[in-house]
Amino acid sequence: MGAVAPGIGPTPVDAQSVETQSQEMDDYSSPELVAYGKRSPYVTSMRQPVNGRPSPDEFGLVFHIGTPLQDQVGAITPSALHYFGTTRGSFVPHIDPAEHRLMIHGMVDRELIFTMDELKRFPSVTRLHFIECAGNRSNSRHRTIIESHGMTSCAEWTGVLLRTLLEEAGVQDGGEWIIAEGLEEVKGTSSLPTAKAMDDIIVAYAMNGEPLRPQQGFPLRIVVPGFEGILSVKWLRRIKVVDRFYMTYNDYGHLRQDPSDAALSYQIGPKSVITSPSGGQELPGQGFYEVRGLAWSGGGRVSRVEVSTDGGRSWFDADLRGTPQPMAHTAFSFNWTWDGSETVLLSRCIDEIGQIQPTREEVAEFWGRPGVRGQDNSIQPWRVERDGSVHNAIV
Amino acid sequence: MGAVAPGIGPTPVDAQSVETQSQEMDDYSSPELVAYGKRSPYVTSMRQPVNGRPSPDEFGLVFHIGTPLQDQVGAITPSALHYFGTTRGSFVPHIDPAEHRLMIHGMVDRELIFTMDELKRFPSVTRLHFIECAGNRSNSRHRTIIESHGMTSCAEWTGVLLRTLLEEAGVQDGGEWIIAEGLEEVKGTSSLPTAKAMDDIIVAYAMNGEPLRPQQGFPLRIVVPGFEGILSVKWLRRIKVVDRFYMTYNDYGHLRQDPSDAALSYQIGPKSVITSPSGGQELPGQGFYEVRGLAWSGGGRVSRVEVSTDGGRSWFDADLRGTPQPMAHTAFSFNWTWDGSETVLLSRCIDEIGQIQPTREEVAEFWGRPGVRGQDNSIQPWRVERDGSVHNAIV
Repeated sequence: MGAVAPGIGPTPVDAQSVETQSQEMDDYSSPELVAYGKRSPYVTSMRQPVNGRPSPDEFGLVFHIGTPLQDQVGAITPSALHYFGTTRGSFVPHIDPAEHRLMIHGMVDRELIFTMDELKRFPSVTRLHFIECAGNRSNSRHRTIIESHGMTSCAEWTGVLLRTLLEEAGVQDGGEWIIAEGLEEVKGTSSLPTAKAMDDIIVAYAMNGEPLRPQQGFPLRIVVPGFEGILSVKWLRRIKVVDRFYMTYNDYGHLRQDPSDAALSYQIGPKSVITSPSGGQELPGQGFYEVRGLAWSGGGRVSRVEVSTDGGRSWFDADLRGTPQPMAHTAFSFNWTWDGSETVLLSRCIDEIGQIQPTREEVAEFWGRPGVRGQDNSIQPWRVERDGSVHNAIV
Repeated sequence: MGAVAPGIGPTPVDAQSVETQSQEMDDYSSPELVAYGKRSPYVTSMRQPVNGRPSPDEFGLVFHIGTPLQDQVGAITPSALHYFGTTRGSFVPHIDPAEHRLMIHGMVDRELIFTMDELKRFPSVTRLHFIECAGNRSNSRHRTIIESHGMTSCAEWTGVLLRTLLEEAGVQDGGEWIIAEGLEEVKGTSSLPTAKAMDDIIVAYAMNGEPLRPQQGFPLRIVVPGFEGILSVKWLRRIKVVDRFYMTYNDYGHLRQDPSDAALSYQIGPKSVITSPSGGQELPGQGFYEVRGLAWSGGGRVSRVEVSTDGGRSWFDADLRGTPQPMAHTAFSFNWTWDGSETVLLSRCIDEIGQIQPTREEVAEFWGRPGVRGQDNSIQPWRVERDGSVHNAIV
């Protein structure tokens, strides 16, 4: 078989030429580095603030730190790079897990309180799920992917199904909603349908094989698969079963109160984005490129991703990495040879319930205006110019 | 539905009692913590040295730092806790990726050299694989699981299939072996059958969504799925295609030279271990426990895990977490109610090619002695005493 990627240009060489490479050694014998590794000083991929604005009641600052998706490979977001959103700037509760408690009360047969040790003894699940802020893609003017899509991340979450705990407590008739409350000053409270709680919400104490990071809710949070990120309450301390939708601080954006309707409006639509090449990157020249990206949907598994390298005139199936998991990032790739001319790269996600990621025009028609704030799951176009520079094609 | 885990004992409580929890805040506004998160100061899970002895030629120290499997949940080992083995103590090469090169030479049509940027442009794969040192479980006297099994870890690796690069270079007739060489002083060189290289070896530049850590081979290593860890050469700089098995520094343990035979002797057998409860842990009392563990095999996917809670008299299927991946850790769990009497917990792995994890007696019969060094994949028994303490049952 011949060369698959002739445009990349590895160089035939004198067989001795790698002998001269440095053999300088770093000493990792310090107790800290034996106990817990660190990344190379040459690796500088980092999150960055992508959104800061006063909260609706001016109580605090809505603050978002985005994941550097341009550097992402695979489905898993490293915990240290997981996106982070709060309504109180960069402050997070300092919680001693030995002192932490979760209470379940309200319309239940038995009001219960759990220590962390007790929670960890319950039957557990480990599942890959994305969490995405509804404000991701909040307008169209973003220059780079960390600005446009950085508020979505994906981790392997471990914890107890909320259903398991609610069955311990015994939900009473009429307990159609739950209020989940966190420990930050604004409580992070959200209203969620009990039907969702009895389905797949995880009371999670670990991510990616280790305890939650403080910025992701240490020691306890809920993960609400497929729903807007604000509902995945961090620093969880209380779940109250109630008979109605509560208009809580975090519910300001969710005005629909019918459980089925509200549940649907909470759900993230089918979505995808090409992470490489993406805005701000430079292609070094014509030739072979593996177009890489991520797809996800609140509706279930990603079943197919299509890529266009000619602005939407033709579409081809991308390769999916691994086994797509429900409500999880799925990495995709597509082999492309760039001829050096200007073009636009697109991707679209199709999920297992048949939802197709819409175009920007379709979203605009549905909502009556382009670039709606929140839940804009339209196709992201990246324009490649003749000089190899890549730009957001939304003008 | 009633309570599933009545032995755990959550407490009915006054509904006000969680209101008193601390709301002390930590400020994560420093540029370092905005850019890259860190774990809670309350999380102290750490690796520890589990083996130190002079290498066979006394050139250096064979040094191993084990993963704290007792704290592991899910399949993914956090990169900072991935096990680490070298023949030179804690020293690792300090490599500037901009200067790093991979050379492919020997019995090829075109000798080639690749920069890191060039490698990253090739079609890539992302796959979950364990890496395990053949010296894991090197004797039976271990008190805890980090001592007995800590030299296995699992990550989502991303890189180029070695096959893709060898096809670029064009392997010549008779090039039945490859030598993979790293940048450390002892070169880390290993002989591998070209058949394995053309199958599933990954030239990996990333793990768990970010670049390799220095202790895991930054910026480049090979991952040889299912084979002994020493073959997954780190700090990779050269691959030479040759016509025979070379007796290199790292080949000291692999004396069989026929490719098919050697490949089999390289392969990790079906293996599993209960991580919780495990040696050194304490059960707080009778009642419900979720028995948790990991299973893996060099032979392919884990197809089934069985657990015994009565020293092997009866066996039951454990629940597997997620979709088992080939040559990857698979998390399992089994619901158990402890009646307070002394007992022994066991697990055994069955893989997709039908291999069954053997008992210690079966291994001893095969090798002519118990507790052979290397490749001891026998069932690990943990004895639970009446006081709840857990011990290695191998006496």
